[in-house]
Amino acid sequence: MIRVHDAVERLSAALGGSAAAKLAASALVEADALGLPRFGIAMLDEWTAQASAVPEAVAPQAVSWLDCSACFAPLAVASATLDLAEATRRLGIAAIFLRGVRGFGRLAPFVRHLADAGLVGMAGAEGPPFVAPHGGARPVIGTNPFALAMGHGDDRVIIDIASSSATMADIRNARTDGTPVREGIAVDGEGRPTTIAAEVAALLPRGGQIGSLLGLVVELMAGVAGAGRGDPKGRGVFLLAFDPGAAEERTGWQDKLAALKSDWTGGGGYWPRGGAVLPDTVLDDDFARRFDAHLARMNTR
Amino acid sequence: MIRVHDAVERLSAALGGSAAAKLAASALVEADALGLPRFGIAMLDEWTAQASAVPEAVAPQAVSWLDCSACFAPLAVASATLDLAEATRRLGIAAIFLRGVRGFGRLAPFVRHLADAGLVGMAGAEGPPFVAPHGGARPVIGTNPFALAMGHGDDRVIIDIASSSATMADIRNARTDGTPVREGIAVDGEGRPTTIAAEVAALLPRGGQIGSLLGLVVELMAGVAGAGRGDPKGRGVFLLAFDPGAAEERTGWQDKLAALKSDWTGGGGYWPRGGAVLPDTVLDDDFARRFDAHLARMNTR
Repeated sequence: MIRVHDAVERLSAALGGSAAAKLAASALVEADALGLPRFGIAMLDEWTAQASAVPEAVAPQAVSWLDCSACFAPLAVASATLDLAEATRRLGIAAIFLRGVRGFGRLAPFVRHLADAGLVGMAGAEGPPFVAPHGGARPVIGTNPFALAMGHGDDRVIIDIASSSATMADIRNARTDGTPVREGIAVDGEGRPTTIAAEVAALLPRGGQIGSLLGLVVELMAGVAGAGRGDPKGRGVFLLAFDPGAAEERTGWQDKLAALKSDWTGGGGYWPRGGAVLPDTVLDDDFARRFDAHLARMNTR
Repeated sequence: MIRVHDAVERLSAALGGSAAAKLAASALVEADALGLPRFGIAMLDEWTAQASAVPEAVAPQAVSWLDCSACFAPLAVASATLDLAEATRRLGIAAIFLRGVRGFGRLAPFVRHLADAGLVGMAGAEGPPFVAPHGGARPVIGTNPFALAMGHGDDRVIIDIASSSATMADIRNARTDGTPVREGIAVDGEGRPTTIAAEVAALLPRGGQIGSLLGLVVELMAGVAGAGRGDPKGRGVFLLAFDPGAAEERTGWQDKLAALKSDWTGGGGYWPRGGAVLPDTVLDDDFARRFDAHLARMNTR
């Protein structure tokens, strides 16, 4: 057993001890603590001592593009997040487009960092084609998560939603286990709904047309404007932030956020928090064993 | 009968003849030509000769906030769009938050203008609470459209989608006509699905959770960061653009856009074009009569 806080400290040191290392370590450990091990320290399988250092922006630009194919992806996304926060504080608004990004985990921890810096943070990631457009039968885009975060404390909101309601890993698991796929999430090669994992040719967009278009928005941002689409070395990712406190007058956005949260929850809605965990949360022995194995490999480079 | 081109010219002159007047006129006439008269020249009911001139940004800022409550809204949104294009060309990325915006029509023509300027344009508008959060029964946010446009010619994409699949006008019409409301779009005061217009207490988000969260994203941007929420003088609107050609290297985004369009339509998807109309399109006599009445009032100020 190991506490989240201690795991983050140890992994952060193994990743070099920088602020980006701490953010990356925190993002990975948190995913395991949330019961999402596919987005957690499993990403360390991709770590090599030979990975390039993440290029640091000397003078932060308003918009920049970065090829991350030679970097350890969680560290590259964390480093870009920190650079983006600095550029946004100076310029009011900024964006970074990454491409060649291998597995980096969840978007939520990175946009949360931007919210904690007093900014509105947005991010999206495209990926290999598994999801069909609405009305179609062939996979064209990835599960393309989109995330947005703003605010502090109890009012902080962290949206992190994928454009399909299942992943290809779910389909693979169903195939392995011989269990049916949930209805309404996948189609066969003819575009017919199927619950048989072996017949799945494409996932369906979440919520039909609106999920399809949200996935297209992420593909246009991260895949087209960010040039990540079709790169065999990894995904396209965009990060965008602006400073809601940059108005010359007082807009009272914090009060408006608190009032919206109250209206939203009072109206029966769920206020999304992006699944943070407390530093004292304890991870189990299975995690501790896997964690120790990763660190042993990293520390004997 | 009147051609779109001639109607735009005449309305543009009546609105002052500026570039913003032309964009506003074009947006309104186009809506009528598309068979969406509620977003068309009906907006001219709000026009008064006493409306304030839209404040012009002397030096375009990266992020700016603007109270439009004393302006004619279509002209304010058009003017902000032109200012945003100029700021984005200079700075790489920029955003404008408007509040106190009365009816201005559709978002598509404004983000299309940004795409035609070589930029990626995004926009969203919040409004009076008609839509319940997913799982809820009380109205908290507006129908909150979101739009994104990029590219040129046949490849140009214009997404313009509302977060609910009906509007309160649809409900009012059903009440007046005594016709049922479509299933799955509205709930009564107890949160039960209803098709009886008189019982409708809230609209439902399009596609469930994902539409609800997209509506929340627009509310956070236009209502909270843009400070438009709850302003009795009008809506909150955000406009955001960046220059995909600002990369130091050549990213080939135009080629990637063409390839994505080909994959998307080849996979059975619909490539959204935002409903533009040709200048030679002819508007009918009913439009011509309403149009002449508006112009007569405007030109005798």
